[in-house]
Amino acid sequence: MPARAVPELSGPAPAVLEANQRFYAAFQSLDIALMSAVWLHEDWVQCVHPGWDLLIGWDEIRGTWARIFSNTRRIQIAVSSVRVHAEGDVAWVACTEHITSAFANSFDEALVQATNMFVRREGAWYLVGHHASPLLNAPIPKIQ
Amino acid sequence: MPARAVPELSGPAPAVLEANQRFYAAFQSLDIALMSAVWLHEDWVQCVHPGWDLLIGWDEIRGTWARIFSNTRRIQIAVSSVRVHAEGDVAWVACTEHITSAFANSFDEALVQATNMFVRREGAWYLVGHHASPLLNAPIPKIQ
Repeated sequence: MPARAVPELSGPAPAVLEANQRFYAAFQSLDIALMSAVWLHEDWVQCVHPGWDLLIGWDEIRGTWARIFSNTRRIQIAVSSVRVHAEGDVAWVACTEHITSAFANSFDEALVQATNMFVRREGAWYLVGHHASPLLNAPIPKIQ
Repeated sequence: MPARAVPELSGPAPAVLEANQRFYAAFQSLDIALMSAVWLHEDWVQCVHPGWDLLIGWDEIRGTWARIFSNTRRIQIAVSSVRVHAEGDVAWVACTEHITSAFANSFDEALVQATNMFVRREGAWYLVGHHASPLLNAPIPKIQ
């Protein structure tokens, strides 16, 4: 038995964290089909890339991921300081993204604070909101 | 009858938008008691000020608002592009904050994209998450 209770891992938290990991796996894969499978395809889902305006609806969000993926040669994302909270069929994860990107002619490193929001539909958790913002002690990621 | 349906204003949306307005009224008032009344006082609520690391729990969050308020002489916030979505007892608002701050010896203007998350407790909506990030076409707000 653990010496200390870990209440964050009771209830839906493991499934939410798994959905969060699938999001970052899709991000790293640069594969739009994997990214598409992570998101709920509704016209109200929302996304804020670092420094960008709000994007609303899966069609618009899909377009920006496709653009980011086509302009990125390779990307590595390590995630730290992960916090999860669930309320009924809604959950959100806060985490810090350590991103290393390779473009056609350059590299970029960035530290980003993210809030990822999920809803549960028929037992499965889907991403419905991604808000990512640059941390001031690191350069803003260059999304071309 | 309106020529066009406004589905966003059905259900809990008006009450959520009112809670969102109370948050900005509290922010503008620089009154920690008003800000305290807006938030749910739990150890899992979260806040990301523009460019800051994640803050967790009301005690930590309260401390930063108190610090921001004590270092600001006057602040004006206009909110635009407001979007609301609710799922059961959870709702979130995306909006753009146009912030003008007066400090002891300087002024500052900033454009910030915010995601505000609310939960309903006994019929009332409380703020449980605030993620604010600088928009690249405006200076990052100076929080002293």
